[in-house]
Amino acid sequence: MNSNSKHMRPIWLAEKKGMVQVIDQRYLPHELIVKDLKTVNDTIYAIKQMVVRGAPLIGATGAYGVYLAAINSPGKAADNEYLLGECEKLKAARPTAVNLEWGVDRVYNAAVKKAPGENRMDAIKAEARKIVEEEAENCRMIGVHGCDLIEEFSRKKGGKTVNILTHCNAGWLACIEYGTATAPIYTAFEKGIDVHVWVDETRPLNQGARLTTWELAKAGVKHTLITDNAGGHLMQHHMVDMVMVGTDRTTHTGDVANKIGTYLKALAAKDCGIPFYVALPSSTFDWQLTDGIAQIPIEERDPDEVRFIEGEKDGKITRVLVPPADSPAANFAFDVTPARLVTAFITERGICNANVHDIKNLFPDKKQW
Amino acid sequence: MNSNSKHMRPIWLAEKKGMVQVIDQRYLPHELIVKDLKTVNDTIYAIKQMVVRGAPLIGATGAYGVYLAAINSPGKAADNEYLLGECEKLKAARPTAVNLEWGVDRVYNAAVKKAPGENRMDAIKAEARKIVEEEAENCRMIGVHGCDLIEEFSRKKGGKTVNILTHCNAGWLACIEYGTATAPIYTAFEKGIDVHVWVDETRPLNQGARLTTWELAKAGVKHTLITDNAGGHLMQHHMVDMVMVGTDRTTHTGDVANKIGTYLKALAAKDCGIPFYVALPSSTFDWQLTDGIAQIPIEERDPDEVRFIEGEKDGKITRVLVPPADSPAANFAFDVTPARLVTAFITERGICNANVHDIKNLFPDKKQW
Repeated sequence: MNSNSKHMRPIWLAEKKGMVQVIDQRYLPHELIVKDLKTVNDTIYAIKQMVVRGAPLIGATGAYGVYLAAINSPGKAADNEYLLGECEKLKAARPTAVNLEWGVDRVYNAAVKKAPGENRMDAIKAEARKIVEEEAENCRMIGVHGCDLIEEFSRKKGGKTVNILTHCNAGWLACIEYGTATAPIYTAFEKGIDVHVWVDETRPLNQGARLTTWELAKAGVKHTLITDNAGGHLMQHHMVDMVMVGTDRTTHTGDVANKIGTYLKALAAKDCGIPFYVALPSSTFDWQLTDGIAQIPIEERDPDEVRFIEGEKDGKITRVLVPPADSPAANFAFDVTPARLVTAFITERGICNANVHDIKNLFPDKKQW
Repeated sequence: MNSNSKHMRPIWLAEKKGMVQVIDQRYLPHELIVKDLKTVNDTIYAIKQMVVRGAPLIGATGAYGVYLAAINSPGKAADNEYLLGECEKLKAARPTAVNLEWGVDRVYNAAVKKAPGENRMDAIKAEARKIVEEEAENCRMIGVHGCDLIEEFSRKKGGKTVNILTHCNAGWLACIEYGTATAPIYTAFEKGIDVHVWVDETRPLNQGARLTTWELAKAGVKHTLITDNAGGHLMQHHMVDMVMVGTDRTTHTGDVANKIGTYLKALAAKDCGIPFYVALPSSTFDWQLTDGIAQIPIEERDPDEVRFIEGEKDGKITRVLVPPADSPAANFAFDVTPARLVTAFITERGICNANVHDIKNLFPDKKQW
C-alpha cells in the first residue's frame, strides 16, 4: 500500500539478513520505526506488545515466526518435536485472534507433511511467504466485493458522499495490503466514489486515532477522527451510511470478536437501521466454535494501557497518566458482537449473511460441515 | 462532600472578597486549584472552558453569575434591561444543560419580582444561595431514593457486591453535594452495602478517569476505571448489575441528553436486560421540549479536545497529540438516549418511569400539563 509514494508492507522477509522486519506500530503516526525480528522470542514479543497487530498480520507474523525457529536452529528444524514446541509458544502469544493459530499451524503442517527430510527450511519459507501473498490477495478481493456495497449506496444517494464509520484499524497496517474493513473504502476511492470515513479513536491504544487516520491521510481519503462515544449520536442523526469493521475471530455461526467497543457500534447501527458489515478473509473464521460470547477467549491486557496515554509533545513520544495514580483499571481488549447484529460478511469469495447456512454455502470446503 | 477529610463544595460564595470561588476541574486529579470568579465574563469563561461542569453545578454557577453582574455594577443592578442582558450572555455560555437557563432565570425573576427597588442585591444573593442549597438537598434525596434500588439488588444477590456502571462524572463535583448518579452509591456505601463502580473514562475530557475515580477514591468506594468501549462486554458477561448516569437535560417526555456515549451504554443495558437509571433533580427536566433527539441542542466543542490529551508527567500536567498533526476531528459533547431505553428516573421526589404520564404524576406543579 502507498505510504508517501513508497510501497510498504507492515512485514517483510529480509532474507539475506536472516530475519523478518516489521513496522513498529506502537510509534505511529509520530515515528516510522522498523523493527528486526531475529528469533521466536522477538516474534512473541512483537505480537504480545503489539509492535504488530491486526488479525491477518498476526497470522503472517506467526508464520514467519516458524521460519525464524527453523533458521535459528537449522540442526533442529527437521525435529518435529522441537518445531512443535516453538509453534506452541508462538500460538500462546495472544489468545483472541484465530489467525495466529491458523498461520502457525499451516506452516508447521506444510513442513511436516511436505518436507519430512532435508528441504524443510525451503518448505517453511515458501509456506510463510504463500500465506502473506494469499492474505494480500484476499484483502484485495474483499475490496472488490465490498466496493459494490459502497457503490450501491453512492448510487442511492445520487453520488453524494457515502459516510462510513470504522472502529480500530483494519487497514493495510493490520493486513499486509489494502486491509479488511478499509479495502472496500480504498477500492471505492480509487474508482472515484465520494467516500468519507468516521474514524473511532479506539481506546485504549488508539489504533483508530494513530493508525487509521495515518493510513487514510496518506491515501488521500477524507476522514474525521471521533471519540468512541460519538458513533451513536452520528447514526441517530443520519451522518453514517454504513459501518465497516474487521474481526479477530468470527465463529462459523457468525459471532464476531473484534476490538472492544465494536458491539456498542453494532447495537447503535441496529437501533438506527444502518447496515453493519464485517470484512474478513476466511483465515479469520473459527470453524470450531459455535457461540462467540461463551467460547471466544477475550484477552485482558495491562491496565496501564488504560491509565497512561502516549502521544507526541515537542517532537518526542511522551506518556501521561490520566487518572489518580492509585486508581485501579481493567483492560479487556475485545468484545463479541452476536451474529444477529451483523448485516453481512465481506469475504474474499463475496458477501454472505451472518448465519451458519450462508457461511457454509460460501465456504463448503473449509470444514466437515 | 468529604475530600481528604475536608468538607468541600465545587463552588462557594467568598462574600467578603466580592467574588465566587470554584474548584478548577480541568486540573483534577493531579492538581487541586481554586479559581476566582469576579465578573460575568469570568463566569462565562469558567462555564465554556469547563472549569466547572455538570448540569446542577452549571445552574448554580449561572445563578452566582447574576450575583456577580449585580455587585460589579451596583448602580445598574436595579436596571432590568442591564440585568437581562447579562443573563442572556450567561445563558448562552453552553447550550445543552437546561440548568444554566433555569438557574439564571430563577435569580433574574426573583430580582425583578421580589425586589423591584433598592434591596435587589440582597434578593439576588439570597436566591442564588437558595438554589445552591436546594440542589444540594435535592441530590441528598436522590441518594435516599436511589439507594433503595441498590439495596434491593444487594438483597437479591444475597449481599454480594452490587456492580454499578457510570458514565462521565455526575458526582458532587458536578452537583454541589453527593452528586446525582453517585448520590445513591454514596448513600448505599454509607449504609454498609457492598458496592463497586465501573467508571467509564469518558472521552474526550476524561471526566470519569479524572473526576469520578478521584471522588470515589477519596470516599473509599471500590471502583475500577475502564475505557468507554468496555461496558458492553462487561454487561454481556453479567459483570454489571445496573447502570446509573446523570443528565444535562431531560425532556418531560423522558428523552435524556447526557455526555456523549451514554446512548451506547443504554443500548447495551437494554440488550443485556440490565436496568438503566438516570438520576436528576427536577431542575434538569425541560418542561417545554417533547422530542429529545430532534430538539435538544447538542454542543459541538473544539476538535483539539479530541486530538490532544492531558495527563500528568513528572509532576506536571502535560498535553500530548495522539493523531497525525493534520487529521481533522469532530467533537460532539452530548447524545440523546430515547425514553424507551430508560428503566426509570431517580429524582428528589422519588422514582418514576420514563414517560410523560409518570413524570407528570410526580411533578404536577412544574408546568401547565
